[in-house]
Amino acid sequence: MAEMASGSRKELRRAYGFDEVALVPGTVTVNPENVDLSFRIGEHTLSIPVLASAMDAVVDPGFAIKFGRFGGLAVLNLDGLQTRYDNPEELLAEIAQSSPLEVTSVLQKIYQQPIKPNLIGERLSAIKKGGVLAAASCTPQNASILAPLAIEAGVDIFVVASTVTTARHISEGKQELSFDKFCKSTKVPVLVGNCVSYEASRELMQTGIAGLLVGVGPGAACTSREVLGVGVPQVTATIDCAAARDDYFAETGRYVPIITDGGMRNGGDISKAIAAGADAIMIGSPFAQAEEAPGRGFHWGMATPHAGLPRGTRIRVGINGSLQQILFGPTSRTDGTQNLMGALRTSMGVCGAKTIKEMQRTEMVIAPAIVTEGKIWQLTGSK
Amino acid sequence: MAEMASGSRKELRRAYGFDEVALVPGTVTVNPENVDLSFRIGEHTLSIPVLASAMDAVVDPGFAIKFGRFGGLAVLNLDGLQTRYDNPEELLAEIAQSSPLEVTSVLQKIYQQPIKPNLIGERLSAIKKGGVLAAASCTPQNASILAPLAIEAGVDIFVVASTVTTARHISEGKQELSFDKFCKSTKVPVLVGNCVSYEASRELMQTGIAGLLVGVGPGAACTSREVLGVGVPQVTATIDCAAARDDYFAETGRYVPIITDGGMRNGGDISKAIAAGADAIMIGSPFAQAEEAPGRGFHWGMATPHAGLPRGTRIRVGINGSLQQILFGPTSRTDGTQNLMGALRTSMGVCGAKTIKEMQRTEMVIAPAIVTEGKIWQLTGSK
Amino acid sequence: MAEMASGSRKELRRAYGFDEVALVPGTVTVNPENVDLSFRIGEHTLSIPVLASAMDAVVDPGFAIKFGRFGGLAVLNLDGLQTRYDNPEELLAEIAQSSPLEVTSVLQKIYQQPIKPNLIGERLSAIKKGGVLAAASCTPQNASILAPLAIEAGVDIFVVASTVTTARHISEGKQELSFDKFCKSTKVPVLVGNCVSYEASRELMQTGIAGLLVGVGPGAACTSREVLGVGVPQVTATIDCAAARDDYFAETGRYVPIITDGGMRNGGDISKAIAAGADAIMIGSPFAQAEEAPGRGFHWGMATPHAGLPRGTRIRVGINGSLQQILFGPTSRTDGTQNLMGALRTSMGVCGAKTIKEMQRTEMVIAPAIVTEGKIWQLTGSK
Amino acid sequence: MAEMASGSRKELRRAYGFDEVALVPGTVTVNPENVDLSFRIGEHTLSIPVLASAMDAVVDPGFAIKFGRFGGLAVLNLDGLQTRYDNPEELLAEIAQSSPLEVTSVLQKIYQQPIKPNLIGERLSAIKKGGVLAAASCTPQNASILAPLAIEAGVDIFVVASTVTTARHISEGKQELSFDKFCKSTKVPVLVGNCVSYEASRELMQTGIAGLLVGVGPGAACTSREVLGVGVPQVTATIDCAAARDDYFAETGRYVPIITDGGMRNGGDISKAIAAGADAIMIGSPFAQAEEAPGRGFHWGMATPHAGLPRGTRIRVGINGSLQQILFGPTSRTDGTQNLMGALRTSMGVCGAKTIKEMQRTEMVIAPAIVTEGKIWQLTGSK
Repeated sequence: MAEMASGSRKELRRAYGFDEVALVPGTVTVNPENVDLSFRIGEHTLSIPVLASAMDAVVDPGFAIKFGRFGGLAVLNLDGLQTRYDNPEELLAEIAQSSPLEVTSVLQKIYQQPIKPNLIGERLSAIKKGGVLAAASCTPQNASILAPLAIEAGVDIFVVASTVTTARHISEGKQELSFDKFCKSTKVPVLVGNCVSYEASRELMQTGIAGLLVGVGPGAACTSREVLGVGVPQVTATIDCAAARDDYFAETGRYVPIITDGGMRNGGDISKAIAAGADAIMIGSPFAQAEEAPGRGFHWGMATPHAGLPRGTRIRVGINGSLQQILFGPTSRTDGTQNLMGALRTSMGVCGAKTIKEMQRTEMVIAPAIVTEGKIWQLTGSK
Repeated sequence: MAEMASGSRKELRRAYGFDEVALVPGTVTVNPENVDLSFRIGEHTLSIPVLASAMDAVVDPGFAIKFGRFGGLAVLNLDGLQTRYDNPEELLAEIAQSSPLEVTSVLQKIYQQPIKPNLIGERLSAIKKGGVLAAASCTPQNASILAPLAIEAGVDIFVVASTVTTARHISEGKQELSFDKFCKSTKVPVLVGNCVSYEASRELMQTGIAGLLVGVGPGAACTSREVLGVGVPQVTATIDCAAARDDYFAETGRYVPIITDGGMRNGGDISKAIAAGADAIMIGSPFAQAEEAPGRGFHWGMATPHAGLPRGTRIRVGINGSLQQILFGPTSRTDGTQNLMGALRTSMGVCGAKTIKEMQRTEMVIAPAIVTEGKIWQLTGSK
Repeated sequence: MAEMASGSRKELRRAYGFDEVALVPGTVTVNPENVDLSFRIGEHTLSIPVLASAMDAVVDPGFAIKFGRFGGLAVLNLDGLQTRYDNPEELLAEIAQSSPLEVTSVLQKIYQQPIKPNLIGERLSAIKKGGVLAAASCTPQNASILAPLAIEAGVDIFVVASTVTTARHISEGKQELSFDKFCKSTKVPVLVGNCVSYEASRELMQTGIAGLLVGVGPGAACTSREVLGVGVPQVTATIDCAAARDDYFAETGRYVPIITDGGMRNGGDISKAIAAGADAIMIGSPFAQAEEAPGRGFHWGMATPHAGLPRGTRIRVGINGSLQQILFGPTSRTDGTQNLMGALRTSMGVCGAKTIKEMQRTEMVIAPAIVTEGKIWQLTGSK
Repeated sequence: MAEMASGSRKELRRAYGFDEVALVPGTVTVNPENVDLSFRIGEHTLSIPVLASAMDAVVDPGFAIKFGRFGGLAVLNLDGLQTRYDNPEELLAEIAQSSPLEVTSVLQKIYQQPIKPNLIGERLSAIKKGGVLAAASCTPQNASILAPLAIEAGVDIFVVASTVTTARHISEGKQELSFDKFCKSTKVPVLVGNCVSYEASRELMQTGIAGLLVGVGPGAACTSREVLGVGVPQVTATIDCAAARDDYFAETGRYVPIITDGGMRNGGDISKAIAAGADAIMIGSPFAQAEEAPGRGFHWGMATPHAGLPRGTRIRVGINGSLQQILFGPTSRTDGTQNLMGALRTSMGVCGAKTIKEMQRTEMVIAPAIVTEGKIWQLTGSK
């Protein structure tokens, strides 16, 4: 009936999130104790493939030290409270005590305070004194000013991130950040994000970055999809960016690891991110629930305090347990939110993967879960 | 097992709505301040690509003036209360005060009052005195009588719309509206709707219309899909009609803009409508929530007062904020229902689009959200 | 990874129900007043294409007369209360008064009473005295005994139906019903059901039946899908059986109408059933809600009283309105459950169909709705 | 836009669970009384194709005897309470009395008690004295020690099972179980599980096993999918493993039956498992609800007591009825949880299958149900 030139119609591709896929065990199994979780970024090797998000409710110097000692890498947010206030504890308490109705206004007000350059050195030195790697992040707009200060203070890895970052940004009359120049002039490995597509990943890799953060819109405290309509489910985003990494490696011989950032809540999600092709993962909410996190049981994104168009909410995440329990257990929780590394080891074991690279080859099926009343019903055959 | 002549079976095509898709950022980003939102219809240029729906809870002369000054175009409903009653305020109050059980009957009674021709001139003159463009709409049945009156009163754009309008209507023994003749005899641009398919769009474009309203059944106050089973999700409807527009333009050189009408609730939905191919959008519910709207926190469609077969409901939408806040912010709301134009600018920025035409080329993925308990759960990786 | 002989795997085809599809308006519209709803079965022509289900909560002689006068055809259940009890009113009251916990046991007990042959003539005569067509149904097991009694009493159309009926039934040591012989020996048109697949339809049509009931498991009071796992969503079942009808007609020149039976709740569902290919529809629950229905606001299926394996429940449907309102309005309800024929006329009008046959060619799209909290959320763009 | 080497992207295949499929009746129907449900495993023939899961809340010697007399096969868990405690009743009571918050810790503590070899003989002898077949299971780690003890005690069928079992397990420095050797040295038929993929099934079949348990993650008390991300919906898992069985049989002439294990709640699910290709099914939760089950209305999996990473929960299943009612009725329940064998017979009858092998050829369609508020809404056309 519709005699339509189908060539003229926009085509849509199906994309998948964590709740829609499941891992298929293979023909080999591995003892979880014999699984190697290590992850290499630049010259550094982490014993677990996990970064803690550069969010004020997750990382402060104390958290960064503890997390680094556990083998991971915590990223300090240089655009956040730690570098705007001498005593961020007061502000963190104020945020935690605000009512849901007023909290966005409170956040908008608090984040209008200017960044104090001296605090950058102070916070990073504190982390370095803990004997662990120091990582720090800022937006592309602030990178050329803040990165030199961070490097001076001994930062080991620098992260440039915003909701969406591309190698080519157009802004009339403003000097934009050139990642080519930035990577060359910055003496430490540079991670850039966030990104969700094959082409954008390729272009960023070509600028010389040391790693790529993958994910737009998946975080628990993020409302980009409602406000902007923008977002790609994390499994598909990871698959696409991993394909870019593999193709770029095949052509150039340079391996740029990708780090799936956001939306993971439990061991199953982490395992799926790696099976989708991630070399490592970056987590916010699950660590905001640690006793050691600065957020006091709350969590919010860096898009929330935006003065004109907030794109996130403060959410109450509660306290789940200690960082030790969350990462390594032991645990009596059965929902997969504790002993994340034990879960990853076991998952890799049943999938027959001895290393992260082997886990990336695990077969996945589309097996939707249904979310209702805050609970996930999985259509594997049973409620 | 089923040895069936598959050629004889009806084939079904999958169609998508706003909640089922998401935008994919591209390889370029643009500073939101450098984005151009303008929209051209006939000889007129609007600074924002937004029309306010010809619904009695949304547009009265006062609203039309304010909305026009903000750069958009409000359409006055010539089949509604404004032209049936000298003092529509009384009726609007009565509707707002009716209980849910009785309100449909009340609406059926109120809308039986005949249209007073003199009120058409009165209402349109009031709008023109405000120094903005005046637009008015009626059904195809009333168009040949009401359009001349509106043009006499200085209307700038005329809209002919019903649930479904086609270039060919069959009605035994009645004189039907010929859009060919109507467009030729009407001195102002004529918009026609509503329409959801490629072929019907093509036929309507060939009659000389200046623009097309796209959408059957998506509005928040509409129950056409339950009552009639009719309706095409807005993303697919927009994609199909945009293909008709592009093919018609390629063949004739005449560009007939399409305006996605209905079902958008926030900045994300608006961004998706344009990415699906819309040149502009028409919104009802979000503006019925403006302090300036005549509906007093309620909203209803023009199919609701149908005497024999009401196909809509009065819904309580509440008051969200001022028109200024809804269109341009600033805001502390994080659900995307305020600062719609700021959201569109930001969305276009992250998608690398400097103009509406460029935004129409943005990639979209199918990424279903699940609606439960009135809340949308998005399967992007997280609740 | 899975090097599997894919030819050896069972393939699954996607099937669709009413909530998953929507009708697409075409390039022509028709005035609803000019739509012809008539339906021909055997030598009889109904003015509306609607049968009332042979269920005890829906049809008794009084209902059948009233329904017949409105132009439809009500089917009396010869295996039910009307032929087991001289005074079924008492039993209907007992069922209505039973608690949810005990009602299945009550039904099991009540339906153990044997059928009284004399009541068959009595009930059918009562219907014939009302001046309308009389239709009656029974299971295949009882058909050879009950059909002659019904024909003697003047039945106009005879229906043989069970959950699933095929032309070939295997039962060791029992004399099974041969539809070939039955149709030849029965002087009135024979409708048979229920059926959901192309091949089974074809085989039944070859036996000489006058019409086919389509649908296994869709009714509101039916739990066949939980208990047996059996059931095909109604849109796909109708499409498949309509293809069988069309192919059979193309080969033989004999047109066997198909009647979609069960699962329709409103005008939209009825319109979709016809667009899927139905010549008429059979409805239970919506008529059980009529003031004239014998069920007193309750409804149950004939599989419910099964002594060993009940496959249905008594559900409270409430009283929606008079049969006049449900069929023809006028109405103030906006959910499509009243003025079903007005809705069908309007739906056919916007789809450009002047007759049922034309409506069968209407385009449909897959456009899922989500059912949550008993309410249907449609992903057409809005909640 | 995305010029991507599509060959480099990971592909995902859609997998289906019980709630997403439905059976299509064929062109023949069979009287349920004439259906043959028997199932052959090794030299033994069961009159019903049902195994009771090796879970402590389901099977103890008393349950095993009663279940065996009904024609099925109950499997005793040699790694569970029955072989760790002389008087397991006390522990079962303690578990039932624990609060939801403390129960996982309680389970972790209780299951740390070592296995007492003498109890293996004692429990199995008790079953044998009941005059029924005795089956017992343990994990691969314990198989070489426990199997000889069980065989000495007269076990008829031995089961080796863990979450995921493969023919090839890698564990540095540990002696792993070789299924080839184990099957050869074990005098009774060996069932192995669990498995979900074609290739892994093939490899296990080649080791000489007598049957295969299919299913990872579907059980009601299992949280493997949240914790590990691992799991394949049961319909697809069964289809894939059945293809492996059929191809292996075609090549070797040896028929290795597959037993779908977990996730079935009612007669519909059981029918679907067999239609997907299962030769028999293994059930936990539905039998934990029997009056005769040791769990006292509770149920938990063997992954729950894991000291470091529990992957299951104790769930309250309640008491549904006697084992007689659950298996054979009669019943007044209409949700398909009682008279499971009657439901299977009826389902096979309407699908025209006289034997399990014939039922495996029944057509299935994809027909999703939606789970909301703990209730399944089926999109067959009606709520």
